[in-house]
Amino acid sequence: MPADPPVTVSFVPSGRRGTVPAGTTVLDAARALGVDVDSVCGGRGLCGRCQVTLGERPGLPADPGRLSPPSLPETGYAGRRPLAPGHRLACAAQVLADVVVDVPEASQVHRQVVRKEAGRPDVAVDPVLRLHYVELPEPILEQPTGDAERLAAALAAEWGLADVRPDHHVLVALQPALDAGHREVTVAVRDGREVVAVWPGLRDAAHGVAVDVGSTTLAAHLCDLASGAVLASAGRMNPQIAYGEDLMSRVSYAMLEPGGAARLTAAVREALAGLVVTLCEDAGISPEDVLELTMVGNPVMHHLVLGLDPTRLGSAPFALATSGAVTVAASTLGLGVHRGARVYLPPCVAGHVGADAAAMVLAEGPHRSDALLLCVDVGTNAEIVLGDRHRVLAASSPTGPAFEGAQISGGRRAAPGAVERVRIDRATYEPRVRVIGVDAWSDEPEFARRSRRAGVTGICGSGIIEAVAELYLAGVVGSDGTIRPVDSARMVPEGRTWGYRLWEDPEIVVRQADVRAVQLAKAALQAGCRLLLDRAGVDEVDEVRLTGAFGSHIDPLYAAVLGLVPDCDLDRIRSVGNSAGRGSLMVLLSAAARREVEEVTGRVEKVETAVEPRFQEHFVAALGFPHGTFPSPHLASRVALPPPVAPPARGRRRSGGEAPSAVVS
Amino acid sequence: MPADPPVTVSFVPSGRRGTVPAGTTVLDAARALGVDVDSVCGGRGLCGRCQVTLGERPGLPADPGRLSPPSLPETGYAGRRPLAPGHRLACAAQVLADVVVDVPEASQVHRQVVRKEAGRPDVAVDPVLRLHYVELPEPILEQPTGDAERLAAALAAEWGLADVRPDHHVLVALQPALDAGHREVTVAVRDGREVVAVWPGLRDAAHGVAVDVGSTTLAAHLCDLASGAVLASAGRMNPQIAYGEDLMSRVSYAMLEPGGAARLTAAVREALAGLVVTLCEDAGISPEDVLELTMVGNPVMHHLVLGLDPTRLGSAPFALATSGAVTVAASTLGLGVHRGARVYLPPCVAGHVGADAAAMVLAEGPHRSDALLLCVDVGTNAEIVLGDRHRVLAASSPTGPAFEGAQISGGRRAAPGAVERVRIDRATYEPRVRVIGVDAWSDEPEFARRSRRAGVTGICGSGIIEAVAELYLAGVVGSDGTIRPVDSARMVPEGRTWGYRLWEDPEIVVRQADVRAVQLAKAALQAGCRLLLDRAGVDEVDEVRLTGAFGSHIDPLYAAVLGLVPDCDLDRIRSVGNSAGRGSLMVLLSAAARREVEEVTGRVEKVETAVEPRFQEHFVAALGFPHGTFPSPHLASRVALPPPVAPPARGRRRSGGEAPSAVVS
Repeated sequence: MPADPPVTVSFVPSGRRGTVPAGTTVLDAARALGVDVDSVCGGRGLCGRCQVTLGERPGLPADPGRLSPPSLPETGYAGRRPLAPGHRLACAAQVLADVVVDVPEASQVHRQVVRKEAGRPDVAVDPVLRLHYVELPEPILEQPTGDAERLAAALAAEWGLADVRPDHHVLVALQPALDAGHREVTVAVRDGREVVAVWPGLRDAAHGVAVDVGSTTLAAHLCDLASGAVLASAGRMNPQIAYGEDLMSRVSYAMLEPGGAARLTAAVREALAGLVVTLCEDAGISPEDVLELTMVGNPVMHHLVLGLDPTRLGSAPFALATSGAVTVAASTLGLGVHRGARVYLPPCVAGHVGADAAAMVLAEGPHRSDALLLCVDVGTNAEIVLGDRHRVLAASSPTGPAFEGAQISGGRRAAPGAVERVRIDRATYEPRVRVIGVDAWSDEPEFARRSRRAGVTGICGSGIIEAVAELYLAGVVGSDGTIRPVDSARMVPEGRTWGYRLWEDPEIVVRQADVRAVQLAKAALQAGCRLLLDRAGVDEVDEVRLTGAFGSHIDPLYAAVLGLVPDCDLDRIRSVGNSAGRGSLMVLLSAAARREVEEVTGRVEKVETAVEPRFQEHFVAALGFPHGTFPSPHLASRVALPPPVAPPARGRRRSGGEAPSAVVS
Repeated sequence: MPADPPVTVSFVPSGRRGTVPAGTTVLDAARALGVDVDSVCGGRGLCGRCQVTLGERPGLPADPGRLSPPSLPETGYAGRRPLAPGHRLACAAQVLADVVVDVPEASQVHRQVVRKEAGRPDVAVDPVLRLHYVELPEPILEQPTGDAERLAAALAAEWGLADVRPDHHVLVALQPALDAGHREVTVAVRDGREVVAVWPGLRDAAHGVAVDVGSTTLAAHLCDLASGAVLASAGRMNPQIAYGEDLMSRVSYAMLEPGGAARLTAAVREALAGLVVTLCEDAGISPEDVLELTMVGNPVMHHLVLGLDPTRLGSAPFALATSGAVTVAASTLGLGVHRGARVYLPPCVAGHVGADAAAMVLAEGPHRSDALLLCVDVGTNAEIVLGDRHRVLAASSPTGPAFEGAQISGGRRAAPGAVERVRIDRATYEPRVRVIGVDAWSDEPEFARRSRRAGVTGICGSGIIEAVAELYLAGVVGSDGTIRPVDSARMVPEGRTWGYRLWEDPEIVVRQADVRAVQLAKAALQAGCRLLLDRAGVDEVDEVRLTGAFGSHIDPLYAAVLGLVPDCDLDRIRSVGNSAGRGSLMVLLSAAARREVEEVTGRVEKVETAVEPRFQEHFVAALGFPHGTFPSPHLASRVALPPPVAPPARGRRRSGGEAPSAVVS
């Protein structure tokens, strides 16, 4: 029999081209040429993942005769992914003549997942866990190897996986699955090595959950690990709040109450398991279908989820039990998912700059950037990262709870009915507001009707920021943070200070103490940023990104007006959503992202605000609006800023325009 | 400061020699020269393991001045291993001049463990699990890595262990141990990679348990993993006997009773946990101190211990769930030992030649032998291995329960009071016996007194073999297995057959059916051996080893007389004890033994008795004593054998001296 004549196959979009014997299937040609074409069933015409179309180039038209005519399994294909018109199964279509084959993005393993947020880095889907379908030979007396060894041989021969190791529970489940699947099974292989699940027959979907374990909120996405598609998203309160609002009170609880750490661990794990159930219900799958999870969190959350005692994180030197990336069985954490599922946690940067900061770095990518980026996760404790492709610095700063609406009069968590946007007329001092869940301003006619249901309940963190900033811009609050009695019925005398009535029913008054709380918080944040600028030897950053459950709701303009962050081109201050959560998603979907976050975290330089002598100096200087000492030319070019208040004679500092003694008292 | 002058250090017994700067410690010199000197504490003068003495050679006398004078920590040494007179701590003594250093065996890591049994291969102690003592630096704010990473760095720097991975429970326990140990901890590292345990301070003993999981008996040894010393040995009945005496009845139970397999698994695991407790009590340690276990067993035991459904092992093709070596967490099996302990099971040869046979191969070492060895584990199911360094063959043969004293009239398990040795006077036909636990023959005066306590309870497997063999040699039983009425009051008529009264009170009669049961069992065993000889293309073996709980109690002479095994030089038929248990011990103590058993098992050729057409032919021919067709020149040269019985006219077979139809009816 003469050898089949060689024909040339060109693949687009990869551009790879080579010759193969006529009669070669498109899938085999793609594999021979290193072209990325997806397949779970290994070319058996079952999974429908390897669909391709005829392409063309000058001199080589899209002539269907260049491929073999459709035959079984294509003509009778009844799988989960129907053949689109003009599509062929790469595993069935044979190359008969020179041809151009187009591999649509949906048929590429490493397809790009397009994220909603503009400017976010895409992540190539490349999960650590993959499904492989294999048919095992029947056991025969003459070949007494075990079925696990037959499985290993098939994975090596068909998928190039050498030396796979089945979990114990897979050994238990293997033969029943082989019986039920008539010797055909699908296995989930992690890192090309650990066989963590087995099912009878063909199974072409595996799911994963990416969690951001916040001290206030647990937020999670459920994904199809193969496509990268987010099938469901959900959040819930972190039930540890019952043991302490902020991190330090939870650490105290763990330290002082016998069994306290274990209770905190049990509470968050139970909530996480419940969150997974919710996600699965939303997506119409079973928790048993979840095979991989990722979790990011600050060091205290990180330790509590893992069952590690967090008390050493409560005081210097903030000694982490472990700082490296951790992989642990989901069953150890009692998450109620598939028995073979693992949980991956990226590394922590330091004792109070956690895996959430590492995930933020991964998602925002200062280390990939030519511009100098400042990324700030604004919360009770702010994580601050400054860097570019040459160097990455990180710090944390204790901003306190003001930004989350706590310890503010009328303060509420960000929930329907909370005031989140505030505008104050510069002439009349009259306010208008928007509340969460109502798509109208309070001075618009439809507001009353639309807000009837939730009502107006209080003011949330972003609302208080806008209120203080607008009061400052309107001249009601001075650059030193003092509320001054302007000519308005909204001014409320309160002892020796004044308040401003933002809302009547219920009454929401911005009090002097509220402004002071915002000043303390923003000065701590700004001072942390300044320390990093000092360390980097620069005065200005190119770009600011506000992230975090709270940071993503701050209007960049007001962040600049109050001076939460150093002065910067207003167009380059952006709220970018939950970066840590996005980083968690990236490490869920991509093994390369895991390597990247582990690599970059290892070289992040930690700046310790608590022991830096200049922190206090920066803090005091930053108390004023927008800043006590540094000018704000970028901001001033866009917004009319009131003149600074002259320093009172009793001020301790001679330079600068602020009265820090009044503020910090 | 001038460099220290080089001096020459010679080590014995290794013979290694090299130059080091004067002032180098003996331990550092040994490490530089690759000399095996033990140390757990890493040269801190704590563990006392590195004791050496001064050696000498011509021209280099044992002059104490060649080493630095004893100083702290030697002079004040108060550790667990006191310094013997003339001994020095290698980590403290410095080399001052050319010197010969003798490293006693007790100070070598890879010291040979001498076994009691003559001729057994020694095993170099080289456990997969080792203890390492490290001192970790205090955490400081400036270096925010976690304590687990500090541990990894110390293990890399001091012990050359790259990329260690702590178990999750070690992460949990690490910081409390560091606190309790003032930053000094000992860790157990498995395979140079997995950190499976951590304790405060110095700990220099780790323990392991090697188990032989027999279908009748669970036998186990508790060892010091560092020295290889067996600290305790214990056995107990396999409680699965309640669900079926033999393997096939247990497989039936697993197949037919809902939840049956799980009950069998729970029963044996519970017994194993109890056995570990017993061993630990005997050795004065806690089950928490057990860090590594090994288990060998036939495929059904292997699967049931692992929680794998054994029903496929009940019929052809005897499909194993897994045939390779398995490592599983001891906690998965509920063994109640240290949380980080693992259980290792060597590979299985085939669906009814299990990890016990693999362990037997390892212990007896046909693959290391120039002579052709036949190793037989005699039990309800006999495992037979034939081989030399060129080729190893294995088979199993269903001998039935006769050899274990079951289904024999008056049969008893081998326990105190059971008849185990029998002699019958060739002239008078009078017997004398020995019973287990009594150190005298029944015709000796002290027998009555010494046997009063246990009494005489019945006859065990080796007793029935000796009884039948002696009856055959005395002419009471013919070569065809028929009991003939000789002139003795001991003959008991039983219908159309005769019995022989071996004992009066209680009455123990060897009946025709008992002889037939022994014939069937021995013929199955001999036939299995013959199949292997056929396959190997030989007629004779150089050496026979009888092993197993039962095989080790068979007198080789009577094994030859009855023809359990092919004729062979009587001096080269030996009972060698529990080879499988010894193999289990070897893989407990030696990583090299694990590699060896995995390698050799992979190339054992399996011979399937059930489908070999010649099995039945060999079986029928082997029914006679010593053998129906093959001559027994080796045996005949040492023992006067009665003439064979002439074949009866109604025999189906024309050749040979037996009456198979009478036997198999």
